[in-house]
Amino acid sequence: MRPFAPQDFVVRRRRAAAQARAAGLAGILVAPGPDLAYFTGYVPTAILERLTMLVLPADADPVVVVPLLERGDLEASLGSGLEVVAWKDGDDEYATVARMLQPDGRYAVSDGLWALHVLGLQRALPGAGFAAFTDVLPMLRAVKDAEELSRLSAAGMAADAAFIDVLSTRFSGRRERDVADDLAQLLRSHGHQHVDFTLVCAGENGANPHHDAGDRVIEVGDMVVLDFGGLMHGYGSDTSRTVHVGEDVTAEEREVHDVVRAAQQAGFEAVRPGATCQDVDRAARAVITDAGYGERFIHRTGHGIGTTTHEPPYIVEGEERPIEAGMCFSVEPGIYLPGRFGVRIEDIVVAFPPGHPQRALRLNDSPRELLVVA
Amino acid sequence: MRPFAPQDFVVRRRRAAAQARAAGLAGILVAPGPDLAYFTGYVPTAILERLTMLVLPADADPVVVVPLLERGDLEASLGSGLEVVAWKDGDDEYATVARMLQPDGRYAVSDGLWALHVLGLQRALPGAGFAAFTDVLPMLRAVKDAEELSRLSAAGMAADAAFIDVLSTRFSGRRERDVADDLAQLLRSHGHQHVDFTLVCAGENGANPHHDAGDRVIEVGDMVVLDFGGLMHGYGSDTSRTVHVGEDVTAEEREVHDVVRAAQQAGFEAVRPGATCQDVDRAARAVITDAGYGERFIHRTGHGIGTTTHEPPYIVEGEERPIEAGMCFSVEPGIYLPGRFGVRIEDIVVAFPPGHPQRALRLNDSPRELLVVA
Repeated sequence: MRPFAPQDFVVRRRRAAAQARAAGLAGILVAPGPDLAYFTGYVPTAILERLTMLVLPADADPVVVVPLLERGDLEASLGSGLEVVAWKDGDDEYATVARMLQPDGRYAVSDGLWALHVLGLQRALPGAGFAAFTDVLPMLRAVKDAEELSRLSAAGMAADAAFIDVLSTRFSGRRERDVADDLAQLLRSHGHQHVDFTLVCAGENGANPHHDAGDRVIEVGDMVVLDFGGLMHGYGSDTSRTVHVGEDVTAEEREVHDVVRAAQQAGFEAVRPGATCQDVDRAARAVITDAGYGERFIHRTGHGIGTTTHEPPYIVEGEERPIEAGMCFSVEPGIYLPGRFGVRIEDIVVAFPPGHPQRALRLNDSPRELLVVA
Repeated sequence: MRPFAPQDFVVRRRRAAAQARAAGLAGILVAPGPDLAYFTGYVPTAILERLTMLVLPADADPVVVVPLLERGDLEASLGSGLEVVAWKDGDDEYATVARMLQPDGRYAVSDGLWALHVLGLQRALPGAGFAAFTDVLPMLRAVKDAEELSRLSAAGMAADAAFIDVLSTRFSGRRERDVADDLAQLLRSHGHQHVDFTLVCAGENGANPHHDAGDRVIEVGDMVVLDFGGLMHGYGSDTSRTVHVGEDVTAEEREVHDVVRAAQQAGFEAVRPGATCQDVDRAARAVITDAGYGERFIHRTGHGIGTTTHEPPYIVEGEERPIEAGMCFSVEPGIYLPGRFGVRIEDIVVAFPPGHPQRALRLNDSPRELLVVA
């Protein structure tokens, strides 16, 4: 995988400036984390309370504002081509940024910018307006370019390989966390540099969509939800499959699994040019509702993925923005029966342009049928 | 180390409500991360874009607002005693919180609350005011109780033990990152559950206070700044020492080290009842300025430590709040000679009450003289 080149970041910043202009914004303010990494390649050692920010005006050159003692690291990371302004302890860093902004301008800021900083900017520039990326430029990082898609695809394939491998490990008699550790190890051995989560949810724990992995011992007869992912070459994987421990699958377990699988397929098939995010949610949800489990599907159908494992676009009722070619997101319906078990099936899907022979592609393609483990 | 009991969190919340009342605030809004852990013990699996918040009114019972799918984890973590309100995808979570707030109230929010959420609350409750903890209640977590101090003390002793052990490893001929890996391993072997940073900055890299640890090979004759810490039982360590590789210390290296050591001692001695944070910074800085290196001390003298390794109180010019008994913070002056080398010496210090035979105690007590490594 070739590293991103300085030119890749220049192109992203220009596209963002154009999006900001089109949205009537004076510019965007980018915080450390996935946004700053996306626009500059710079990842500070830690996100501390000191203000670091990329100021990207709609109609002027970008500037990185950085604490003086981070300047060396930043410049080593950036190479050339971006102006850097350093502030030091005791300076008013918000005044420093405010001087680069239009006093009555409207700016979009990173979702994860600290409240400390957004409130500081509001104080320094009371006539300006601030809004979060998700609210005014949600699709800023949502459309992936070819280099990004190759990374997401590699991450998806690695997650599939980890799933295939974990099928041949022993489940019964071991704790959820032991299987979770296996999964984390497998993600790493298949190339992930960072593991974000390895949820292993046996039996009644499967009915809690965000149960992690605990001391519960997995038993023959359990349904087990596996939901795992992380970062590979800086881009995310996130997939879920539900397996059964032992051959004796009950009729209800099979039915619930069939419904979720059909819902996942319906969601996938709804990904097409012109469809909205909400359309995909509705397509998956309709299958579950029609089967009588509507009240048991208690979360949205999906979320975008890129340099983070949760980002826009959100596949949820009320999200009426269209799905565009290059958007990449999960389709992950589930059914949760409190106190008993849950089922979730999740793939990462990328939307293709109109006229493409396929409307969309799954970046996960491990088996979706109900598999039996030992 | 006994786990914190539900009652510990109740006491902390009551103290916070009293502080909020005293500051004329209608309450505080606590985000996931160290603040939420401090007030509830709850640590979500990941900090996601979905709003989770402890609403702690100055004059009413606290409520935790949580995404529906996190409710199970939250309640398992909290035990009883805190009201929980869940919202689900598609709800307006800001309206949910707004209904619990006074429309014209002024609220303090976690520094690290996402901009997405603070801007959402401003939209939902335009007549209310919001300010960051650091700006209006900076000392909310700054005064540590006895249980917290015992954890900080244990973390400091473990960091000292790691430093002593690393002295007997080989420095010359190895890369900075190799020594950093050793330090991380040593912190873990001495009981740290989490390593935050292990800076190893040889020669000219020592002149960059936030250089991390890279591929530079350490050579005989190098000054090497070591700055490392992490979390043990949920509380932080953070200490720095500067060592010399080989016996041949130059007169200049020794002089710079002596000045920093004297500055660190002066900073420590300035920690006394009635002193302000700024006084401690000034005391350390005066030693360095008087020695002619004032321009080469390019950061503040220290920062608080607790459930994070950087938090209020900040030991910096302009911080005129008094140091109170139980506050715990670093005293870490340094001198940085660009292109050549740097020296930093850092201990965690806890302030004692008036009348106590000691004014303050260092939680680090490994040798501060210039030690030689191989």
